[in-house]
Amino acid sequence: MQRAQETERDSEVLIVGGGIIGLATAWRSAQRGLSVTVLDPDPGRGANRVAAGMLAPVTELQYGEESLLRLGIASNERYAAFAAELEAATGLSTGYRACGTLAVALDADDRAELREQHAFQQRLGLAAEWLTGRECRRLEPMLAPSVRGGLLVAGDHQVDGRRLGAALLEACVRAGVRIHRSAAARIVLNPAGDRAAGALAEDGTAFTAGQTVLAAGSWSGAIPGLPPEAQLPVRPVKGQILRLRMTRPDGAPLPGGPFLSRNLRAVVRGVHLYLVPRENGELVVGATMEEQGYDTVVTAGGVYELLRDAHELVPGITELPLLETGAGLRPGTPDNAPLLGPTALPGLVAATGHHRNGVLLTPVTADAVAAYLATGQLPPEAAPFTPARFSSTHFPSVPALQEATR
Amino acid sequence: MQRAQETERDSEVLIVGGGIIGLATAWRSAQRGLSVTVLDPDPGRGANRVAAGMLAPVTELQYGEESLLRLGIASNERYAAFAAELEAATGLSTGYRACGTLAVALDADDRAELREQHAFQQRLGLAAEWLTGRECRRLEPMLAPSVRGGLLVAGDHQVDGRRLGAALLEACVRAGVRIHRSAAARIVLNPAGDRAAGALAEDGTAFTAGQTVLAAGSWSGAIPGLPPEAQLPVRPVKGQILRLRMTRPDGAPLPGGPFLSRNLRAVVRGVHLYLVPRENGELVVGATMEEQGYDTVVTAGGVYELLRDAHELVPGITELPLLETGAGLRPGTPDNAPLLGPTALPGLVAATGHHRNGVLLTPVTADAVAAYLATGQLPPEAAPFTPARFSSTHFPSVPALQEATR
Repeated sequence: MQRAQETERDSEVLIVGGGIIGLATAWRSAQRGLSVTVLDPDPGRGANRVAAGMLAPVTELQYGEESLLRLGIASNERYAAFAAELEAATGLSTGYRACGTLAVALDADDRAELREQHAFQQRLGLAAEWLTGRECRRLEPMLAPSVRGGLLVAGDHQVDGRRLGAALLEACVRAGVRIHRSAAARIVLNPAGDRAAGALAEDGTAFTAGQTVLAAGSWSGAIPGLPPEAQLPVRPVKGQILRLRMTRPDGAPLPGGPFLSRNLRAVVRGVHLYLVPRENGELVVGATMEEQGYDTVVTAGGVYELLRDAHELVPGITELPLLETGAGLRPGTPDNAPLLGPTALPGLVAATGHHRNGVLLTPVTADAVAAYLATGQLPPEAAPFTPARFSSTHFPSVPALQEATR
Repeated sequence: MQRAQETERDSEVLIVGGGIIGLATAWRSAQRGLSVTVLDPDPGRGANRVAAGMLAPVTELQYGEESLLRLGIASNERYAAFAAELEAATGLSTGYRACGTLAVALDADDRAELREQHAFQQRLGLAAEWLTGRECRRLEPMLAPSVRGGLLVAGDHQVDGRRLGAALLEACVRAGVRIHRSAAARIVLNPAGDRAAGALAEDGTAFTAGQTVLAAGSWSGAIPGLPPEAQLPVRPVKGQILRLRMTRPDGAPLPGGPFLSRNLRAVVRGVHLYLVPRENGELVVGATMEEQGYDTVVTAGGVYELLRDAHELVPGITELPLLETGAGLRPGTPDNAPLLGPTALPGLVAATGHHRNGVLLTPVTADAVAAYLATGQLPPEAAPFTPARFSSTHFPSVPALQEATR
């Protein structure tokens, strides 16, 4: 930050942040013929590095989030084609797996809640099938005997967040996106101070651009240089995850078929837990939700709670090798929905605030923001999610969004 | 093993295994004027790498193990001087810390058992003080409110197994011990086949020696080349441990004094648990005991049980960063006591089988085995521990040892 500006580098679009959202947006923008630069010290390795990669708009559904559900479903529907296009463009796998998701109930209260969720899904016309505990165990024999029932959502799948990041980076390079490996020190305004004009990198390089996209994940609310009205209400929400290996300790395959065949989720002690079995034999267990600022330390308590709850759901996990513990930061917003499109500052475009849904919402975000950059129009599915919904105050209650989006 | 023998290298003593037992024995032997070679692919990094380093002969005391207790106390009494000599010789710290140990009871059954242990200690004239639960919490405010009482053993201390290994390696090098970085492929006999003559390394180098010391930890029972009557009844006993950091996640010191001031141990759900707070701010939590052969995989279940039990004893551990998980192999014997001195094969000397007590027994083992190598006499405290006690069969019951040693 202290160094002198080295050079002025110009492009039509400057994307601040090369996580999966920033890279996918860069790729789609380059495909539309725009010249694009991405600014990131370690591109492809944002929160996706520790994401479980569940593509679960239906099982993630909460009351009052129908517009977010529609966005999620739109993105999920594009995922198979998005992954296939990305794999064809790069020769790299994304780990996309059309495996379905089983959400289970461990006690009578859970069961009642899951039943209500099912009824809600049916009213919305979403495909979800109610299963008894016995039927759940027939699908996933490792489930605890205490499982009382569950919802099978055949259309909620998974992708590997790390592979996705690596493939998007490669796709960007092949599409001619310029990748500059440094963090953004600040957003730079035009001389009049009424328009974003680019950004200054921490290594001293200055970038100018017609449009600057803020895709800095959990740091999107903290970047210097913005007038107060353009600052985005994004905060870090810490998540800790585990990676296990679905083999015996000696590496031999487990007897009696796969350990888990599909995404598994449950609410244990009021906390959402999910187990995502990857094609490569890894099992991702996530995730804590902690309001701890920018702390990404793995704690004894975080690991303990994940293991305790996963053990309650699938007792056999105790036999599995523990490969890795990790922590990352989700970009949270006041209503848990992303910030997409124009901001209060002309020339500054938002592609951030995806909270728990960044992996799922990558295709639809990239399509929508690239469309906006190329045409000035935001597609209808993204329209409810502009930062303008927070224009009266940065922290409205959730109903404000529901009203705005009906 | 397949390669041709490269060279013949001769020394008076060849030590197979450069863990802390092998290195300390090498150091003491070199100090007595013997020429010594140590054979190990990664010297100084055996089971000590994952040892908690408790020096706790009194709190480890079990009924029927009085001769082992005497050996442990003899070693503990030498530790301060041993550590000081080692530090003076090398300039390296061993992390030796005269902190004492508090063994606590979490329920009425534990309390009754600890009371009995106390009475037993008193009959043996060992210093141990009974404390109420309140007194325990006054000493260690992070203890769970459920602690019912405890035994304060002011003379049971700690050392850092990793630093000890590094210091011993340096001391050996400075004392002229030859370190050959390769594993032993097999023990080599003399042409008549009635005496150990050295060992062949996996890199093809052949070593001859007047006396060969088997100090290969949990591999001591599996080394090829020995006649059946000289094979040692040593098996691997897996242990998993955790390392936490006794600071807040942001690295700031914890408010209100040290997290723990002394070694803490308890029996939780029938399993021995210990928390060892290091001078450098690490907290070691150990350890599982698993009969899994040579498997050293960290499992979800091992980590879960350690965290669960440590959390029950000291609820505040949940806040601490989890630095590391690890697993190692203790060299177990049928009676849990080490194998020291002459074996059934002339020229082959044992310094192995230390099970949970390798760090504690390092000084006394090194002194005893070096004395035997130099003089042919084993000091009295080591005499009950020759492999001859297993001469009728390799796996006698525990009373056989008690009888043999009374």
